[in-house]
Amino acid sequence: MTAVAVHGVGTSHFGRQPDRDYLALAHDAVTEALADAGTDSVDAVWVGTVFGPPGIAQRTLRALGITGVPVITVENACASGTTAFAEAAEAVRTGRFGRVLALGLEQMSTAFSGAITPEPTDPEQHAGLALPALYAMSAARYLHLGAVTPEQLAAVSVKNHAHALENPRAQYSGRYTVEEVLDSKMISDPLTLLQCCPTSDGAAAAVLAPASGGGREVGLRGVALRSGAPWNHDSPHVWGFDIVRDTAADALAAAGLDSVTDVDVVEVHDAFTIGEIVTTEALGLVAEGEGGAAAATGVTALGGRHPVNPSGGLLSRGHPLGATGLAQLAEIVWQLRGEAGGRQVDSARIGLIETMGGGVSVLDGNACVVAVLEAP
Amino acid sequence: MTAVAVHGVGTSHFGRQPDRDYLALAHDAVTEALADAGTDSVDAVWVGTVFGPPGIAQRTLRALGITGVPVITVENACASGTTAFAEAAEAVRTGRFGRVLALGLEQMSTAFSGAITPEPTDPEQHAGLALPALYAMSAARYLHLGAVTPEQLAAVSVKNHAHALENPRAQYSGRYTVEEVLDSKMISDPLTLLQCCPTSDGAAAAVLAPASGGGREVGLRGVALRSGAPWNHDSPHVWGFDIVRDTAADALAAAGLDSVTDVDVVEVHDAFTIGEIVTTEALGLVAEGEGGAAAATGVTALGGRHPVNPSGGLLSRGHPLGATGLAQLAEIVWQLRGEAGGRQVDSARIGLIETMGGGVSVLDGNACVVAVLEAP
Repeated sequence: MTAVAVHGVGTSHFGRQPDRDYLALAHDAVTEALADAGTDSVDAVWVGTVFGPPGIAQRTLRALGITGVPVITVENACASGTTAFAEAAEAVRTGRFGRVLALGLEQMSTAFSGAITPEPTDPEQHAGLALPALYAMSAARYLHLGAVTPEQLAAVSVKNHAHALENPRAQYSGRYTVEEVLDSKMISDPLTLLQCCPTSDGAAAAVLAPASGGGREVGLRGVALRSGAPWNHDSPHVWGFDIVRDTAADALAAAGLDSVTDVDVVEVHDAFTIGEIVTTEALGLVAEGEGGAAAATGVTALGGRHPVNPSGGLLSRGHPLGATGLAQLAEIVWQLRGEAGGRQVDSARIGLIETMGGGVSVLDGNACVVAVLEAP
Repeated sequence: MTAVAVHGVGTSHFGRQPDRDYLALAHDAVTEALADAGTDSVDAVWVGTVFGPPGIAQRTLRALGITGVPVITVENACASGTTAFAEAAEAVRTGRFGRVLALGLEQMSTAFSGAITPEPTDPEQHAGLALPALYAMSAARYLHLGAVTPEQLAAVSVKNHAHALENPRAQYSGRYTVEEVLDSKMISDPLTLLQCCPTSDGAAAAVLAPASGGGREVGLRGVALRSGAPWNHDSPHVWGFDIVRDTAADALAAAGLDSVTDVDVVEVHDAFTIGEIVTTEALGLVAEGEGGAAAATGVTALGGRHPVNPSGGLLSRGHPLGATGLAQLAEIVWQLRGEAGGRQVDSARIGLIETMGGGVSVLDGNACVVAVLEAP
C-alpha cells in the first residue's frame, strides 16, 4: 500500500456569507489547496456536503475547471468532510488514483436561521431533540454526575474564542469571561449561546497524493471511520463518548502510536462546549471527568500540555457542516508545517483531528472520523 | 487484489408508493439481499440516494438492525446506486472490508409530481432544460441527422413495456403499439409520455464479498466510473454518447473483454427512449445510427442478438433514482443465475449494466458507471 501525504490545503473564510454561493466558497478553498500543493490538476475528487443540493459538486468543480475526472459526493452528517478525506486517502493508499482532491462545502445561512430543522418525520422532531438539546442532555448528565461545572463548560468557550483571535479565517473571536459566557442567551439549558457553534458558510479542501518526501508534505499516519448505534443504551457514558474512544483507538493503532499523549496538537468537534470536554476524555488526552478542569486550568489551551482547537474550533471558527472536517485538517497541516502564526503550537510533530457526525437524525446513530498526521 | 462477487441481491417493488417510506422500501430490498446471500451481517454499507434527506441511510439501517458498521452515503445523480456499488466493490477488492452492503433508495412520489424540479439557481431552470427537455434535444438532433425515426424511438418503449410484462416488480408494463406510444401525451417534443420514465419509489440492494467459488455467486469482472464535462462542446455526438463509450471501454478493459459483443445481456439507462438508443450505440452493441433500427427490428429485444433491458428498464420497471443502478444489478444477477423467469435470456454468461447520472444540474457535467458481471 502507498504512504499517503497531504500536499496542500485551503479554506474559504468561515462565517455568515449569504451572498457567497457554493461556487464562491469552493473557489477560495480549492484554488488555495491546489496552489499549496503546487499543482493544477487532480485525478479524482471526493466532496463532502450535508445540505448541498444534488449535483452541486459537479457544478462547482466544473466552474473551477475540474472536469472529466471521477467525482463522488459523500454525506455523513457533520463528519461529511472527514469522510471525503478518508475516502480520498483510501483511494491514494490503494493506488486507485494518484492525486485526489477532498473538498467540503456548506452554505447554511441561506437555508437555516437557527438550529438545523429536523425532518418532519423525525422522532426527535416530536421529542424536541434538535442538536443543541441533545448536547444539553449530555451536559446536564455530566453536571448531575459532578463530572463538570457550569464554569468549566464556559471555560471551553472562553478558551476557543481566545484562540480564534489569532485565526483571521474564523467566524467569531473575542476575549470573554466565564461570566459573560454563562450570561449569554440560554439556548438549551445548561448551554448558552456562546457555548453553541454558529450558523456558518464555508469550504475547505485538501490535495492528497503519495508521500514523496517533499519538505512541505504532511504525512497521514492513520485514519479511521466508524458509525455508531443510536444513543448509548448499553454504555454508562454520555452520548458520543464510546464512538470517539473506539474510532480514536482504531486511528492510533493504524498510526502505530501507543498513546494519544504522543499527539502534540488536536482539533476536535466542539459543536457545543460539552462536546469538546467529552471528546478530550474519550480520546484519552485527560482522564474521564477531567475534561472540564483541563479546559479551566489551561491544560487544553495554547501553551498547555494538550492544546485543543488552536483554530478556535467549531465554536469560534464556525461550523459549515461538510467543510468542518477539512478545515480541521487544514489547521493541523498548518500547525505541523509551523505556519499557524500567532496560534502556533511549539514544535508540533504529531496532530490529530476528530469529527463527530451526530446526524440530523440524532436518534439514528452517529459517525466519527479520526485521523493522525505527522509533520514533514 | 481480491476477486469480488455479488453474493445476493434484492429489491422492493418499484412504483408510486407514497405510503411506503424509505424504511419500508429499504426493508424489502435489504432483507431479500441478505437472505439471498445467506447472511445476516455486513462489515460496511454504501448507500446511494439523490433526494434522501441527510441521515436517512443510518436511520434506515438502524431500523433494520444494521448498526455499528461504517456507513457512507454517496450521491452521483442517477448513477448514485451504481456509485455505491462501485465503491462497495472497491472496498472488497482492496481488502478494506470483507462483506459489504450496497443499498440504493429513493422516495420520489412524495416529493415530485412531475419532472424533477431544478434548483432555483440552476441555469437550466432559466433555459427550461428539465431532464425531459435535455433528452428531447438529443432526440431532435438524431431525427435531424436521420439517425433515428419517430417510430424507432417509440419502438424502444414498445419493447421495454413488453419486457416488463414478465417482471412482477415493474411499475408499468403493457402491450403497446408504436402508434399508441406516439399518440400518448407530448412531454417534450419529440418525446411522448410513454417514452419517459415515470416517478418512482423503490430500493435495491446487493451484498458483495470475495469470490469463494460458490455456485450462486455472480462474479464482478470489472467496473468503471467516470464523470464528464458538461454537454459535448467538443464532440459531434449527442449528449451522453462520449461518456458511455469511454466508461464502457474502461469497464471492458478491466473485465478483460475484447468486445462488448461478448456480453449476453445488458441493462442500460433508458430514462427516455433516445437514451437507450444512444447508449446501445455508445456501448458498441450496434453501429452508430443503428440503435433505433435495432430496437424496431428486435435486435435488442428478448430473443434478439443483443437483448437490452429485459427487466423493462427505467421506462417500465421505474426509475427511483438512487435505487436504479442496483435494480439493474439485481436484474443482471438474476439473469446470470438463470432465475429471470419469463424474461430469461437463454444461456446468459456475461452481463453488463450502465447507468448515466445526468445530474439535476445537467449543464454541469454527468456521471457514468459501467460494470461487467459473469455467471456462476
